[in-house]
Amino acid sequence: MMTRPSERASDEKRQVTITRNYTCHAEGSVLIEMGNTKVICTASVQNSVPGFLRGSGQGWVTAEYGMLPRSTGSRMDREAARGKQSGRTQEIQRLIGRSLRASIDLTMLGENTIYLDCDVIQADGGTRTASITGAYVALADAVASLQKKGLISGNPLQQQVAAISVGVYQGVPVLDLDYAEDSNAETDMNVVMDDKGGVIEVQGTAEGATFSRAEMNAMMDLAEKGIAELIEAQRAALA
Amino acid sequence: MMTRPSERASDEKRQVTITRNYTCHAEGSVLIEMGNTKVICTASVQNSVPGFLRGSGQGWVTAEYGMLPRSTGSRMDREAARGKQSGRTQEIQRLIGRSLRASIDLTMLGENTIYLDCDVIQADGGTRTASITGAYVALADAVASLQKKGLISGNPLQQQVAAISVGVYQGVPVLDLDYAEDSNAETDMNVVMDDKGGVIEVQGTAEGATFSRAEMNAMMDLAEKGIAELIEAQRAALA
Amino acid sequence: MMTRPSERASDEKRQVTITRNYTCHAEGSVLIEMGNTKVICTASVQNSVPGFLRGSGQGWVTAEYGMLPRSTGSRMDREAARGKQSGRTQEIQRLIGRSLRASIDLTMLGENTIYLDCDVIQADGGTRTASITGAYVALADAVASLQKKGLISGNPLQQQVAAISVGVYQGVPVLDLDYAEDSNAETDMNVVMDDKGGVIEVQGTAEGATFSRAEMNAMMDLAEKGIAELIEAQRAALA
Amino acid sequence: MMTRPSERASDEKRQVTITRNYTCHAEGSVLIEMGNTKVICTASVQNSVPGFLRGSGQGWVTAEYGMLPRSTGSRMDREAARGKQSGRTQEIQRLIGRSLRASIDLTMLGENTIYLDCDVIQADGGTRTASITGAYVALADAVASLQKKGLISGNPLQQQVAAISVGVYQGVPVLDLDYAEDSNAETDMNVVMDDKGGVIEVQGTAEGATFSRAEMNAMMDLAEKGIAELIEAQRAALA
Amino acid sequence: MMTRPSERASDEKRQVTITRNYTCHAEGSVLIEMGNTKVICTASVQNSVPGFLRGSGQGWVTAEYGMLPRSTGSRMDREAARGKQSGRTQEIQRLIGRSLRASIDLTMLGENTIYLDCDVIQADGGTRTASITGAYVALADAVASLQKKGLISGNPLQQQVAAISVGVYQGVPVLDLDYAEDSNAETDMNVVMDDKGGVIEVQGTAEGATFSRAEMNAMMDLAEKGIAELIEAQRAALA
Amino acid sequence: MMTRPSERASDEKRQVTITRNYTCHAEGSVLIEMGNTKVICTASVQNSVPGFLRGSGQGWVTAEYGMLPRSTGSRMDREAARGKQSGRTQEIQRLIGRSLRASIDLTMLGENTIYLDCDVIQADGGTRTASITGAYVALADAVASLQKKGLISGNPLQQQVAAISVGVYQGVPVLDLDYAEDSNAETDMNVVMDDKGGVIEVQGTAEGATFSRAEMNAMMDLAEKGIAELIEAQRAALA
Repeated sequence: MMTRPSERASDEKRQVTITRNYTCHAEGSVLIEMGNTKVICTASVQNSVPGFLRGSGQGWVTAEYGMLPRSTGSRMDREAARGKQSGRTQEIQRLIGRSLRASIDLTMLGENTIYLDCDVIQADGGTRTASITGAYVALADAVASLQKKGLISGNPLQQQVAAISVGVYQGVPVLDLDYAEDSNAETDMNVVMDDKGGVIEVQGTAEGATFSRAEMNAMMDLAEKGIAELIEAQRAALA
Repeated sequence: MMTRPSERASDEKRQVTITRNYTCHAEGSVLIEMGNTKVICTASVQNSVPGFLRGSGQGWVTAEYGMLPRSTGSRMDREAARGKQSGRTQEIQRLIGRSLRASIDLTMLGENTIYLDCDVIQADGGTRTASITGAYVALADAVASLQKKGLISGNPLQQQVAAISVGVYQGVPVLDLDYAEDSNAETDMNVVMDDKGGVIEVQGTAEGATFSRAEMNAMMDLAEKGIAELIEAQRAALA
Repeated sequence: MMTRPSERASDEKRQVTITRNYTCHAEGSVLIEMGNTKVICTASVQNSVPGFLRGSGQGWVTAEYGMLPRSTGSRMDREAARGKQSGRTQEIQRLIGRSLRASIDLTMLGENTIYLDCDVIQADGGTRTASITGAYVALADAVASLQKKGLISGNPLQQQVAAISVGVYQGVPVLDLDYAEDSNAETDMNVVMDDKGGVIEVQGTAEGATFSRAEMNAMMDLAEKGIAELIEAQRAALA
Repeated sequence: MMTRPSERASDEKRQVTITRNYTCHAEGSVLIEMGNTKVICTASVQNSVPGFLRGSGQGWVTAEYGMLPRSTGSRMDREAARGKQSGRTQEIQRLIGRSLRASIDLTMLGENTIYLDCDVIQADGGTRTASITGAYVALADAVASLQKKGLISGNPLQQQVAAISVGVYQGVPVLDLDYAEDSNAETDMNVVMDDKGGVIEVQGTAEGATFSRAEMNAMMDLAEKGIAELIEAQRAALA
Repeated sequence: MMTRPSERASDEKRQVTITRNYTCHAEGSVLIEMGNTKVICTASVQNSVPGFLRGSGQGWVTAEYGMLPRSTGSRMDREAARGKQSGRTQEIQRLIGRSLRASIDLTMLGENTIYLDCDVIQADGGTRTASITGAYVALADAVASLQKKGLISGNPLQQQVAAISVGVYQGVPVLDLDYAEDSNAETDMNVVMDDKGGVIEVQGTAEGATFSRAEMNAMMDLAEKGIAELIEAQRAALA
Repeated sequence: MMTRPSERASDEKRQVTITRNYTCHAEGSVLIEMGNTKVICTASVQNSVPGFLRGSGQGWVTAEYGMLPRSTGSRMDREAARGKQSGRTQEIQRLIGRSLRASIDLTMLGENTIYLDCDVIQADGGTRTASITGAYVALADAVASLQKKGLISGNPLQQQVAAISVGVYQGVPVLDLDYAEDSNAETDMNVVMDDKGGVIEVQGTAEGATFSRAEMNAMMDLAEKGIAELIEAQRAALA
């Protein structure tokens, strides 16, 4: 029988903690902790939109992602010093942006842009999914601040969005991989869903071996369970 | 009832044509055409490996992707002139590289690197999946040239790899989206599989609406069918 | 007596083939083949001009040049990946742009820009001159499409432009060097002319030894002959 | 009489809090808070040195500095996304590196490099001086870890180093400017000293008006007092 | 007793020569020589301002600094070829700009920008301070040309600005370090003052050992003396 | 009858002045003045070669070119600040390098590299040809310094190299265009020759109208005359 390095059950996610108002300047500022993974997610409102939306009356939500150089076991080069963001970073921030845009009616946002900055201060697997889950809460706070200031009417937030990783570890589908599992998993899949169980994004990658349709379904079942719990944690944090 | 812009049946892929030896210098050179999408895939062998593999006795397969500026309906900026590859380009070439590494036993390749260059000369949707399907054939030719020259013994190719896009268009799961469908689809999913139906990569993205587990399964069924046909086309081309 | 590697006579150019409408999106799209050198030349019309011409009523023609990484005998780095175009690339695309602007009355073009993209898919010497000869045909097609759409009146094309390389190989002036000659020639000269024999550009470089005024004249004679044949080939292709 | 925005006395610095082991991976990891300014300082050991020291038997200490995009009142561009570090960032990280190298005997460090990463998560003035004060504690922890592992013998740390800003605000020399003062000060001066009162670095800039030798001396007196208090706080944190 | 490599007295600066109208195109063009250090300082007027000042009625003064690759003992890489300015270069040009802005009332300049380009053609220590001293004269000439053309009324120049380096060499405070001293000094300090002895900028750095408050005062005394002499030299040059 | 703006005869070049030892650090340092065009040409010796020559026993000569931002009538952007060299700059420095390599036997240079830096401090047309002519003298001095130090035996310099521009101005072929002519010329041609009249490089460009074979010959005659005079001036300077 397989034992996870963390001794968690295969369908057991890590402890999640969501702290709002973590820093003082941003319209939304959240520290999300999934076990040892810690990400600061801020939402910043700017009263303008990218060129392709100017005059459309519609808003925009976009995301940027970064890791502190020593958020990981060995120090990584600082992307600002190297002069470019890695392909991985760009892939992740595109994913975060797409996922969060699925939570919001951009036409109700007016010509405002909300920047979601997800900065990993400590990494232990699942940083991109933690970023999405935390960014939703920061986004909700930023939207509330726009409403409070009377800058928008109505609520552009249409649904909650959360994300989790699943995978196949030593032949067994498991929920919420930490770094010890992630670096040895046969398959790694990131799933983004809304609060009604609708799928927003699925990205599954075989590492070494391929995976079967049955394994894919088992992973999706785990993801549904985990995301439902995260949706609940978001709701509690925002209450 | 929904009619596809191309009037294809929902489970009908476009005509695929695979031309080997398309250009004369590369160890493998393939023109793949999926309907109006045309990609030149070359495989170039270099007798060295990246630093992290030096001395390991193991080889490497990596990919680069590009589009000619006017491969599309309106001219795009040339990435070489802008001075960087877009996030989309990097995402795609990382996907192609991962997918093709799944077809090969790198330890049997010796300390050789195979570069897969996928350059789109005409785009009509599905350029990344066409690139993967075509690159497999170029890779097979490059491996054969290594064998013929006696530079490797045994066959490092473990399995065929092919890819196709599926999506939900006007509420109906469809196979192999062209640009007219892709730009209007509710969901777009790229699937990479091997010749035994094992899944190598799944990337599904909701555009506007979310998708259900049932739709996801229907799309996977279509992808299985389409990829089986592409595997057959690869085999015929290599015969 | 000197024999050329290709066994051509010293004043014999390679077989030229010009295929129009090679790809489907561009206003002008040409594949030009000079022996084994193959270049896709597209002309893309954009209804705007660079800043320095805004409000002038005048148009612009500009060119970009690229080589697929494995268009050559050994793979070159992809310029988009390296993050900059080489000095050679910039030199060539500046030459193509200057040469083609000599064929057209920019004031008759209105505030439109025509981008000429010359992408080498297979290289065997003479890629810059083939690019110029092919780009003229693509430009002519793009101008015709502007006329057909009624976007310009009159014909801004003033003259045909074509180009060829000449050189001194084993002491003998020769026409249209292929790679085997080019890499061993004592002198390499690229000549651009119009359909009346007027010189638009001459770039001659001694490699190793210098060249004499007499050799320069002999090369110019060969260039005149070769360009006259290319002008004829363009005319036939456009008929 | 002048009142500081914070109502502090002119020689009163803000509350300083130094938290060690703030993140889990780095050899030294410190959160330093100077009032509302919060900086994560990590020290990462790498068993190699830059090229110019290879074979010298000597080590190196270097620093990098960054600000999270929304650490400030309005969001700044992410330097990694813009593709380069600003002049201000480079100036600050050069200052931090020079200052901390003054605390250590590099010849006793062996051929090890210690990277000091100072990342501002919340800014309220004085981020560069807080970075230096915090980085010293992280450096001390990293040195201790090298000693504990037996990788160095003896203690390369020669002296404590701390820094503070001083300035002239509404005509009065004041200690430890926060953002409200800093953005309105006539003069801003950053001072770095060791635990014996020796000066390591002074950088004073007049904004608008010049400053006199007398004001300079008054500011240096304040800096001495403030740095002595910070040296004490470092000692307490490391006890 | 300490002897300076140049055998100068400790309070003796090098011979300064200021040549106006050194090149013919710029509104102000000065060659400043401080011993063997030679810098071309030009002031170029442009009738526009950076975005943040547009519509303010106020002008701007900014500076750029460069060294010819072989201005130094061993050839340095050309920054234009490397594709970026070093941290040192940016630090220096920011210092020059700040210092010269202290000499001028920007509101009296109208919406004009004056670019100060300081290019070192021969370096022997003190290039940044020579740049400031020379740039003031070029700026004065550019302002005079604006007055002569009637483009501004009144004199925006408020005070002269000059700069010099001081340091501690073999335990003794000395004025105006040349390269032989600078590369061996215990402390290096750059001081910028106006013609009334007001301090505009002080940047002191300990190299190896720290410096005391007493040494700092001795260095400031030397700087006052040296700058007074430079102010006089500027005045004579402009007479 | 045509009158040149400078009132020179059509075959009359500008006054040339060649000053050796212009700056003090380089192995060769020359100021060349062609009328108002002034270029500092330095030759720097480095005891190593680029990778492709390592172990070959052969040396290398390479060139870099730059213009001070205000060497021209209106200020140009500084290339180091923009982060890249323009296509024009790269074209010119490639030309200078090729031309000077034609003067030297690289196998006699040993594994040394000579960098030729040509920096324009004042521009009035013909900067690239002045650079070549001046760089030859700097190169000769650098070679002499290698000989004097006993680092090479024999004289690798094979021949003198000089360059001049010619053109067609108001229908008349003229020698050595200054800026007033260059910016209005119908044709501009740069010619590089050795001291025996052998042609090293010819680059002729029609601006607006084409040029004839007869005009080309007339320009070549002028170039021969002008270069012979420059060869003489070099000889005198080196005597």
